[in-house]
Amino acid sequence: MPCVVEILSVGNELLIGKIPNTNAQWLAKNITTQGGRVAQITTVPDNLKAIAEALRRILGRKPNLLLITGGLGPTFDDMTLEGVAEGLRVPLGVEPEALRMVEERYRQIIAKGLTHREELTPERVKMAKLPRGAKPLPNPVGTAPGVKIEVGGCSVMILPGVPQEMEAIYRGSVSRVVEEKLKGAVHLEEQITVRGIIESDLAPILKGAVDRYPSVYVKSHPKIGETPSRIELHLYTTTRSRREAEKRLERSISQISGRVVELGGDVIRMRSPSPKEIDPI
Amino acid sequence: MPCVVEILSVGNELLIGKIPNTNAQWLAKNITTQGGRVAQITTVPDNLKAIAEALRRILGRKPNLLLITGGLGPTFDDMTLEGVAEGLRVPLGVEPEALRMVEERYRQIIAKGLTHREELTPERVKMAKLPRGAKPLPNPVGTAPGVKIEVGGCSVMILPGVPQEMEAIYRGSVSRVVEEKLKGAVHLEEQITVRGIIESDLAPILKGAVDRYPSVYVKSHPKIGETPSRIELHLYTTTRSRREAEKRLERSISQISGRVVELGGDVIRMRSPSPKEIDPI
Repeated sequence: MPCVVEILSVGNELLIGKIPNTNAQWLAKNITTQGGRVAQITTVPDNLKAIAEALRRILGRKPNLLLITGGLGPTFDDMTLEGVAEGLRVPLGVEPEALRMVEERYRQIIAKGLTHREELTPERVKMAKLPRGAKPLPNPVGTAPGVKIEVGGCSVMILPGVPQEMEAIYRGSVSRVVEEKLKGAVHLEEQITVRGIIESDLAPILKGAVDRYPSVYVKSHPKIGETPSRIELHLYTTTRSRREAEKRLERSISQISGRVVELGGDVIRMRSPSPKEIDPI
Repeated sequence: MPCVVEILSVGNELLIGKIPNTNAQWLAKNITTQGGRVAQITTVPDNLKAIAEALRRILGRKPNLLLITGGLGPTFDDMTLEGVAEGLRVPLGVEPEALRMVEERYRQIIAKGLTHREELTPERVKMAKLPRGAKPLPNPVGTAPGVKIEVGGCSVMILPGVPQEMEAIYRGSVSRVVEEKLKGAVHLEEQITVRGIIESDLAPILKGAVDRYPSVYVKSHPKIGETPSRIELHLYTTTRSRREAEKRLERSISQISGRVVELGGDVIRMRSPSPKEIDPI
């Protein structure tokens, strides 16, 4: 069973170019390594209507999993949960388990003397207000719980924007959902470097390899302009068996190498014979 | 006149997490600094249907400018122009000026002895096949020209994915279009650091500042968890006059600082009194 994933990143800091979207990259890499396929990444501002509309459009494309990051904190511009509730047309309300998680966190913060306010202020309770039907996901390194809600066949999982918190909740709660949806796919990849041939001459060679072995995805990464020095090729495939995946990569690389050498270039393999693999957990 | 921009990034390498989307960040930063507003960033794979559908959805939101990056090169998986043509339902054909640019580039490459093929192969001509109505934009550092096409009130500008080529075409051709759409807006921003107060206690203070001075956008960037050490605040505003923009930022920062100090925290201003400004060119 395939696991088609979409990522929705929420945050003005991404739309003013303050930071690159490293959360989306981290998620995409981990999902791909597990054997899932990220079909689209969408970045919207901290704005209710933008979040709600993006959510509806994405759910309309029926991914198996939607990961949303950012906007779970206590400040006025953290409005992802409200946006999701609006997008799903369900009310937002305090969820008892989420409230318990937030309370527990503030007990620790108060015990350390980090705040002069001992009560659960509206800003703190806000982090426990979830769209109806949602469940909190434990956040082992921060305050705001992650959130999971099932919508039709799609699991929507919402993670904080702080990278360490997002990563911890991915490892603790999301990774397992990806696996369940995949049921044992294997992703293999290998990177090779082609030298002594320019990209437009390499193009028909790659086309030939992809036409012959369509299950191996081949992507060329040219450096600036077209110089003959180096073109990186990234090859990958996802299937059920490790042996089949290795065979596929090997065949595709052999065909490309043969034709590159015919044209006077050469191919450097970084890792050989066995490419990187992350076993399904 | 506002300049609302959307960015469409095309490339499987972004969806497998091979690289972060630094092109989108670079564009977002430059557009924001010029006074434009990036409303959404969408990342899709090298896939005709995905590109065509994303284009149609974005144009339906009627931005003033749509910047597309990636997929202009000679390889089989460079299919952005074909995807745009399909999205706009116009044919793709060799554009004479684009062909002249590509020819000129290959004359230089051939003169340097970088290829054994002296003819304009189909892969090379492909870079001059534009959607009907489009015009090429000079690429001073690479082979594939940029592309511009007017669709209703929206300028669609397509740039290569190689960062140096994208940046060069932005500077040479896009920057001026942003300015024309803006006609003299000024963007000012300032970053301050709040110490000694946790984020949920800072939240109502920021809400107060934004309610009172809504034209100043305030974004908090908490570090991991909630520690009292440091919270970065990023404030910015866009308007017609530099003096007005300075006044706005000053007022908002004063209000925040006053309340932070009342609660026993303090505020560090990095640049004072005059924040970073890039004059409209």
